[in-house]
Amino acid sequence: MITCGRYIRSILYLLLLISVQFGPHAVEGVWPLPQAFTSSPERYPVNSQDFYFVYGRQSAAQQGCSVLDTAFKRYFSLIFPDHNSADGVLGFSKRKLFIAEISVDHGDCEGYPNEDSSERCNTGLETFSQLVYQDDFGSYFVNKTEIDDFPRFQFRGILLDTSRHFLPVQAILKTLDAMAYSKFNVFHWHIVDDPSFPYQSSTFPDLSSKGAFHPMTHIYTQSDVRRVISYARLWGIRVLPEFDSPGHTTSWGKGQPGLLTPCYKGGTPSGTFGPVNPALPSTYRFMARLFKEVSSVFPDSYVHLGGDEVDFHCWRSNPDVRVFMQKMGFGGDFTKLEAFYIENIVNITSALNKTSIVWQDVFDYHERRTSLSVVEVWRAGCYLCEVRRVVKAGLRVILASPWYLDQPGPTHNWARYYTVWPLAFKGSEEQKKLVIGGEVCMWGEYVDATNLTPRLWPRASAVAERLWSDEKQTSSVDKAFPRLQDFRCKLLRRGIQAEPLYVGHCKHEYQGI
Amino acid sequence: MITCGRYIRSILYLLLLISVQFGPHAVEGVWPLPQAFTSSPERYPVNSQDFYFVYGRQSAAQQGCSVLDTAFKRYFSLIFPDHNSADGVLGFSKRKLFIAEISVDHGDCEGYPNEDSSERCNTGLETFSQLVYQDDFGSYFVNKTEIDDFPRFQFRGILLDTSRHFLPVQAILKTLDAMAYSKFNVFHWHIVDDPSFPYQSSTFPDLSSKGAFHPMTHIYTQSDVRRVISYARLWGIRVLPEFDSPGHTTSWGKGQPGLLTPCYKGGTPSGTFGPVNPALPSTYRFMARLFKEVSSVFPDSYVHLGGDEVDFHCWRSNPDVRVFMQKMGFGGDFTKLEAFYIENIVNITSALNKTSIVWQDVFDYHERRTSLSVVEVWRAGCYLCEVRRVVKAGLRVILASPWYLDQPGPTHNWARYYTVWPLAFKGSEEQKKLVIGGEVCMWGEYVDATNLTPRLWPRASAVAERLWSDEKQTSSVDKAFPRLQDFRCKLLRRGIQAEPLYVGHCKHEYQGI
Repeated sequence: MITCGRYIRSILYLLLLISVQFGPHAVEGVWPLPQAFTSSPERYPVNSQDFYFVYGRQSAAQQGCSVLDTAFKRYFSLIFPDHNSADGVLGFSKRKLFIAEISVDHGDCEGYPNEDSSERCNTGLETFSQLVYQDDFGSYFVNKTEIDDFPRFQFRGILLDTSRHFLPVQAILKTLDAMAYSKFNVFHWHIVDDPSFPYQSSTFPDLSSKGAFHPMTHIYTQSDVRRVISYARLWGIRVLPEFDSPGHTTSWGKGQPGLLTPCYKGGTPSGTFGPVNPALPSTYRFMARLFKEVSSVFPDSYVHLGGDEVDFHCWRSNPDVRVFMQKMGFGGDFTKLEAFYIENIVNITSALNKTSIVWQDVFDYHERRTSLSVVEVWRAGCYLCEVRRVVKAGLRVILASPWYLDQPGPTHNWARYYTVWPLAFKGSEEQKKLVIGGEVCMWGEYVDATNLTPRLWPRASAVAERLWSDEKQTSSVDKAFPRLQDFRCKLLRRGIQAEPLYVGHCKHEYQGI
Repeated sequence: MITCGRYIRSILYLLLLISVQFGPHAVEGVWPLPQAFTSSPERYPVNSQDFYFVYGRQSAAQQGCSVLDTAFKRYFSLIFPDHNSADGVLGFSKRKLFIAEISVDHGDCEGYPNEDSSERCNTGLETFSQLVYQDDFGSYFVNKTEIDDFPRFQFRGILLDTSRHFLPVQAILKTLDAMAYSKFNVFHWHIVDDPSFPYQSSTFPDLSSKGAFHPMTHIYTQSDVRRVISYARLWGIRVLPEFDSPGHTTSWGKGQPGLLTPCYKGGTPSGTFGPVNPALPSTYRFMARLFKEVSSVFPDSYVHLGGDEVDFHCWRSNPDVRVFMQKMGFGGDFTKLEAFYIENIVNITSALNKTSIVWQDVFDYHERRTSLSVVEVWRAGCYLCEVRRVVKAGLRVILASPWYLDQPGPTHNWARYYTVWPLAFKGSEEQKKLVIGGEVCMWGEYVDATNLTPRLWPRASAVAERLWSDEKQTSSVDKAFPRLQDFRCKLLRRGIQAEPLYVGHCKHEYQGI
């Protein structure tokens, strides 16, 4: 029985069994480690012909619940990779030999995952699927196991950057699969940036037709975006869109003339452009319309506004911007101008009922911090110092600094990502609760669909365990290593091109070359 | 016409043309850069329906020449990736619109590539295939081009390590494809090492049945090895086997008891084993039989004997080895013992008519250097100092030190591999001729089929140009960059999962995720 509540508290339980075997078992464990886990050597055979997921009688959700129906189908195939057809999974036969009964205490089957959703049984099914193993003769088994599980942090994200390189939708979907296997629950879609604008806006189609690498082949249509969101939903994964401004917007300027600040050199326009022009009312009218669209396309209650790395040179060079600065009483302090800009964008998104996330730069220069909600800490150095400053200001934090996995490194670096202690700063319990989670960043300078998967996995899985599991139970790298090695083999078995941790082998090597 | 002699001197020439078009062209160039290259804006359409490779009348090889027949078929598909069937490539139709005439001045169609073979037209066909391009409407064109080409170094290798991780045969074949596209001509197969012995020996089947990661799924059968060798042959690629000893042999000991040196602790055997035991006559009888098999399975005239990183601790601990040292008059100098061992192995392989290659360690401790032939320089530091020492001793050199690509790094590191000048040491012309080439090493600690391809390509292509092209014409990283970017897109188009060099896009992104 897997019971799924506000947080997952799953008890895997075997209901009907005809043959029971005892013997040595090969459970290497589950990744990320559940909060409480008791397994016994009692081993039960599981046969794909005689295996069913069923809804419990008390379950608020019943057959027809799209999220669970799909999860049953997906996990059936994951548990039995040799089984050719998942047909009849939800049906009943005369030989009900092994039934996994699923009960849900609320019936939220059609909505989108959100910050306070239950994680909807998916993580419980994932755990169960990792417990089933094959012996040397190909028979499947599961040991009697009791699990009580829930995530340590509610926000466990992966950022993909689809501007520096375009990622085909397939590559994104494959990443969503792998995220679910490690219990990540937020796909942070850094969808546009300086190099290209692949998001095809229905309000401003020129943004992609002029700003994408190619207006037909290197774009995400509305239908592509919907596909990603609904695919993610079925895994219990939220899709957090980021439209980063006022910096990182070079590609926006191609399809939206007048949006970017013209830079000046020696008193005349140089022909180049800087950040979004914060001095023009037209800028805010454009942003209001764009974010209105974004808010309706992306159902998540969060939206990421960016706000990082704004270069003031171009603003400073522009006489109109300087006049605006004087008018507003900002003096020569361009951080005030940027704060003003972001304040406006935050107001736009608040009016759309969205909670905004910003990169730490915004917090650092923003005096009226109370208008902010969630700050993502990304700079290297003493990132816990920054976390502490943010929570002291009463704001929520997402930690990304130690998890920039786009930087290549030998895979044994996983230990560096694993031994991060996000709450190891001086602060009250209330302050620590403001750390809502963390995020793996996979920036795109050197990454596209050719190397995305091996660069992410299994290193991101190390982060996943840090964000999901109890810290005291998972403080040893040496203890985690064999379990992570085993989990990496499970990823290969599921077709995820996860790179090796060190010398060794998996029973089923990656063949999909 | 592509004429293939002792070295490739190819002139691409258009014989029969019905329609001729002039116009702007999109030739981004060829990688690696040919020795001499003149292209004109004269552009000719190339249509898969009307395109044929034919043998010239004067050609020593004619239809039925397996190497060329296969190359024609392979390159037809590479030139026209949209064309579904390569049938009829070698036939004639009534509309002979575009004929690439191939002439060979010798008829070596059935042998294996070797150190003094011509590179058999494959490299000329590769160049030609890179010259054909598609316009925005999908039509194919080639510009009138004259090329005179030959390699700077005769030995241009890639080492794959199939012991630390097992690489499925498919991954090896795919690497051979990519090697041919960059004109590499030696596959150095580091087939066995400490962690596993995947080579299934017909003489000593226990070596793999007990020493492989798995005796059935993680081995190379005789048929697998033959498949790799014959596949490589058709690309003009030599297969150089390495059976590294006396160190790096832990896995050998499992299937060949008595081969390794028992280590002692406190006067008694500790239960662990060190390098191959050089004190026993049985060792040399075993090696003679093994290398006899290896020599007949691998047709190449070179064999790599390893000889690197021998740890003397175990030899020193073993009383029988110490007695042998005294008997031989080696005193306490274990380098003499190792030299003695290698001398014996070199004699075994010489008697089998094989030229042996050893890692530089052997040269460093070997007094009677004249018995050596080819030394591979691999240690970091002043590798050109070592190259100079080796050629001064009159031995041939292969350079590997600067090209350890198994170490991950941002792809822009390609420039580090590109700006290596293998002959930039003080020495005579004769001495410089002893530098026969170089090699990319892809060791297996962190590499298997999941990440092999993006880690190799396109960084290895940078090495390929250094080893193939004229140094003066290819000394600029900035000039090479756009051409390498374009070549990397060609690799993607051919299904090679080559990682990106930097921000940007290809017309056809990698889809095979």
